[in-house]
Amino acid sequence: MDVVAIDALTFDDRGLIPAIVQDAETGDILMMAWMNRESVALTAAEGRTVFWSRSRQELWRKGETSGHVQHVQELRVDCDADVLLVRVYQEGAACHTGERTCFFRRLGS
Amino acid sequence: MDVVAIDALTFDDRGLIPAIVQDAETGDILMMAWMNRESVALTAAEGRTVFWSRSRQELWRKGETSGHVQHVQELRVDCDADVLLVRVYQEGAACHTGERTCFFRRLGS
Repeated sequence: MDVVAIDALTFDDRGLIPAIVQDAETGDILMMAWMNRESVALTAAEGRTVFWSRSRQELWRKGETSGHVQHVQELRVDCDADVLLVRVYQEGAACHTGERTCFFRRLGS
Repeated sequence: MDVVAIDALTFDDRGLIPAIVQDAETGDILMMAWMNRESVALTAAEGRTVFWSRSRQELWRKGETSGHVQHVQELRVDCDADVLLVRVYQEGAACHTGERTCFFRRLGS
């Protein structure tokens, strides 16, 4: 599989890139959050997800307080190098509501 | 499963919401693109993905020229109602490169 370096990623005008988080065992989509360059590097180095909190404007080590750590199996990059897919082993629930995945509702009318 | 109406979705300051597209049969993540309110409504009404092209600033009916249509199985909404997950049956390749998924590369150094 071809490899993309962090320097080749495209960050948006806020310096962020979307990171889709997928359960490596079930294939379920757990959540989507944002990373800046530093949090991508930390995620790769530490083997656990580190995001950038847009509301708190600070690094957010997923699970630091909840214990719901996401251990990285693989980091993938899309064709435009402007979206990341993080395949993880999830401890506990991914969602702050206590649900395993953030996508527990459907769109309807 | 709880239902969220389009009116309850949160669009960003450009009027857009990220839409993660997942293969309903394999669970693979195929791509991520953006929708505005109109394209969300069209996707729901037509049962195929319609995105908003940020580069062309126009509606983009996926597969209109390539034939690589994505038939919607289910539309899910995340806990903050600011990300969509679209589970689809994909005709042909999702990626413009001809790869089945846009995430065919990995992050490395």
